[in-house]
Amino acid sequence: MNPETLLAAITRQARDEPDSGIVKAAMYGFTVPGVIPLWSGEGNLPTPEAFARPAVEALLNGETFYTWQRGIPELREALARYHARSYGRAFDHENFFVTSGGMQAIQTAVQMIAGEEDEILIPTPAWPNYGGVLRIQGSRPVEVPMDFRNGRWTLDLDRLFDAVTPRTRAIALNSPSNPVGWTASQDELIAVRDVCRKNGIWILGDEVYSRFYYGEAGETRAPSFLDICEDEDQLLLANTFSKNWAMTGWRVGWLQAPRALGPAIERIIQVNTSGTPAFLQRGCVAALDHGDAFLAGQVQMARDRRDLAVEMLGRLPGLRFEVPPGAFYLFFGIEGMADSAATVRQIIDEAKVGFAPGSTFGPGGEGFLRMCYLKDRAKLEEALNRFSEWMKNRRRA
Amino acid sequence: MNPETLLAAITRQARDEPDSGIVKAAMYGFTVPGVIPLWSGEGNLPTPEAFARPAVEALLNGETFYTWQRGIPELREALARYHARSYGRAFDHENFFVTSGGMQAIQTAVQMIAGEEDEILIPTPAWPNYGGVLRIQGSRPVEVPMDFRNGRWTLDLDRLFDAVTPRTRAIALNSPSNPVGWTASQDELIAVRDVCRKNGIWILGDEVYSRFYYGEAGETRAPSFLDICEDEDQLLLANTFSKNWAMTGWRVGWLQAPRALGPAIERIIQVNTSGTPAFLQRGCVAALDHGDAFLAGQVQMARDRRDLAVEMLGRLPGLRFEVPPGAFYLFFGIEGMADSAATVRQIIDEAKVGFAPGSTFGPGGEGFLRMCYLKDRAKLEEALNRFSEWMKNRRRA
Repeated sequence: MNPETLLAAITRQARDEPDSGIVKAAMYGFTVPGVIPLWSGEGNLPTPEAFARPAVEALLNGETFYTWQRGIPELREALARYHARSYGRAFDHENFFVTSGGMQAIQTAVQMIAGEEDEILIPTPAWPNYGGVLRIQGSRPVEVPMDFRNGRWTLDLDRLFDAVTPRTRAIALNSPSNPVGWTASQDELIAVRDVCRKNGIWILGDEVYSRFYYGEAGETRAPSFLDICEDEDQLLLANTFSKNWAMTGWRVGWLQAPRALGPAIERIIQVNTSGTPAFLQRGCVAALDHGDAFLAGQVQMARDRRDLAVEMLGRLPGLRFEVPPGAFYLFFGIEGMADSAATVRQIIDEAKVGFAPGSTFGPGGEGFLRMCYLKDRAKLEEALNRFSEWMKNRRRA
Repeated sequence: MNPETLLAAITRQARDEPDSGIVKAAMYGFTVPGVIPLWSGEGNLPTPEAFARPAVEALLNGETFYTWQRGIPELREALARYHARSYGRAFDHENFFVTSGGMQAIQTAVQMIAGEEDEILIPTPAWPNYGGVLRIQGSRPVEVPMDFRNGRWTLDLDRLFDAVTPRTRAIALNSPSNPVGWTASQDELIAVRDVCRKNGIWILGDEVYSRFYYGEAGETRAPSFLDICEDEDQLLLANTFSKNWAMTGWRVGWLQAPRALGPAIERIIQVNTSGTPAFLQRGCVAALDHGDAFLAGQVQMARDRRDLAVEMLGRLPGLRFEVPPGAFYLFFGIEGMADSAATVRQIIDEAKVGFAPGSTFGPGGEGFLRMCYLKDRAKLEEALNRFSEWMKNRRRA
C-alpha cells in the first residue's frame, strides 16, 4: 500500500500531531559533525555507579520476572522516606506509584481523568509533550500564555482561572517550569489549589525540577503542592528519577496520588507497560537512600552553569531573558528572530551549537530559544563562545 | 476528600474497568503460604546471564541518557536479522519499533488506529488486556466468541467477518492464542488478510507465542501473517522478548509496522514512555543474536510440560480441554463449575495451587481455568498432583 493510504487509515490525531521541536532539532543536529548539543533536558553526567550497582546485582541474580504493577514495596517505602526528609512531614508509601518515567506518570494521570474532548489548562511556554499526550488521546490542551514583561515571566492567575469551563478536568502546573524556569510562590500554589477545590477539578502537578531551585535564602527546594495539600486531596503529582539522579536513560518515575485511586492506577499501568522492571527499581532505591550528596552536587553545578550562561549571554546585545530561579534551562529571546525552528537549524550549521526552538513550547514561545545548561563547564563555555561569535556576525550582517 | 468523591472525579472508563482476573488471582494467592503459582504467563527460568551481561556493561559504562524513540539502530537491525532467519526472506530494520514491552506495542498500535467509540474485533477467550486497553481510551472491543466443540477450539470466520461494521478499525488476532492455544492455519490467516484488505481495516496481529508451536511436522514456528503479507500491508504486529528469552521482567517488546507510520509511532512513544532504556536494548540484541539454542530449549521444555499436564489431567473425569497446538497454557473446563473466579480462590485455599479464572478471558471463558505449564517439572508435577487430589475430593463431596 502506498504511504498516503496507510496514513489515511490511522486516527486524525495520530496523523496530525506535530513532531516535537526538541526531537526535530536533535535529529537535525545529529547529522552535523562537531555540534555541541544543548537541546535535550538532561545533564552531562552518567548515572553514578552506586545507583547502578544494585540494579546490576538484581538483574544478574535473576530478578527478571513480572512484578508489582504499583512498584516494588521497597521503592514505594523509599519514596515515602525521601519525601519525609524533603518536606518535613510523614508520607505513606500507599500514595506512591512507580511508572516507566515521568512522562508515563503524566500519561497515566491524564488517561485517568480526561476523556474525549475534556480540557486541561496548561500555562505556556510548556514542555510540548503535555499537549501531545492530551491530543493523542482525543482530549484538549487549553493553553494559557504567560507574560514576559520587564524581563520577568509571570503567570496571570485571573486569566488562568477564567479559562476554566465545565469541560475542564485539571490545571496542569509545572513549577519550576520547563522551559522558562518560572517558579510558583506558595501563595500562587494556594490560589490554584483553592480554585481547583472550588471547581472539583484536579491539580496535575509537575515538580520534576523542584530540587533545582536557586532561592536566595538557601532553600533546597521550591515551594510545593505537598506543603499545602493533603494526601487525599484532588492532586496528581508527576515526578522522575531522571533529573535529580542522572537517570534519564532508565525511564523510571513516579506518580503521587490519593490512595483511593490505587486500583484505577494499577489497571492503567497494566494496559500501558504492565509495570517497570523490578531490577531497575532496586537502583532507584539506592538513588533515594544514598543520593543526597550527588543531588546537592548536581544542583550546585546547575547554579554555577546558570551563572556562567547568564554572564556570557548578558554581554550580548539583542538578547532578552530572565535569570531563571529554577530548573536548568535558559530561555532567551533574540531580537528580530521570527522563526525559531529555522534559526535553530541555522545555528547548528553555522555555529555548531544546538538549541531547542521556542515555538515548540506553545503560545508565547516563538522568538525564544531554549538551552539546557547542565553540562560540562568547558563544553558549555565553548558553546557559549561559539554562539556569542555567531550573534556578533549576525549583527554585522 | 473521601474516596467516593475522588472516584467520581475520574473518567467513567477508568473507574469502571474491571481488575484483571489474573492479577486478582495472584494477589489473593500471594497471601496464602505454600501456593504453587501457575496463574501468570511466564516460565520459571530467569534471564540467562549471556543476555543480561551486555545490559550490565552498557549500564556501568554510562549508556544512561535519552535514546532513540524508535529503538537503538543495533536492535532494530538485530530484529531484521532474526526475522530473516525465522521467515526465510529479507526484512528491513525500518519496519521494527522497540517498545517497553509487548503490552506497550499493543497500546501504541491501538492509540494509532482507534479513537473514541471505534471498534476492534477480538476473538475470545482472549487475554483481558486487549479489552482493557481499548476501554481505557474510550474505544470498544467487540468480542466474537470461539467455539469449543468435540474437544476442539475453532474460530468461526464467517461470524468474525459478520461483526465488521463501519466503526471497525481492526481485527485483532492472537495466534497461537493465549489462553486456548488455538493456532490459525495459513488459509485462515489469508482469509483474515483478505477481509481486512477489502474493508480497508487493520490486522492487529499478536504472534508473541509463534515459536511455542507444537506442529507435528517438526515446524519451528506457527503460520504467520509475515508469510502472507507485505511489509507495507495494513498490518501491525506486536511481539515481545518476554516469552522466548525469559525476559518478562525487562519490559521490552517491539511493534512491526509499515515504515510510513514511523513518525506517528515515534510521536506516540514520545508521549508514552519516551523510549526504552538503551542499556536494556543491548541485552535484547544478545538474546536475538545468541539466543536460538536457549529458545529451542524453552520450546522443548514447554512441549514436555504440556505432555505431562495433558497426561495427568487426562486421567481425571469431569475435565475437558484441547491438547493445545501452541502457546504454553492449558485451558481446561471443569464440569459443573459455574464461577471460575470463586473456584480459583477455593483451589488456592484447599489445594495450594494457583490458576487464572476463565471468566477473565471474556465470552466463552467461564467454566474454564487457565494453567501456565512452563514450569520446573517437579513443581508442575506436584501442582498437578495437588489439583488431582482436590478434584477427587470434590467428586466425593
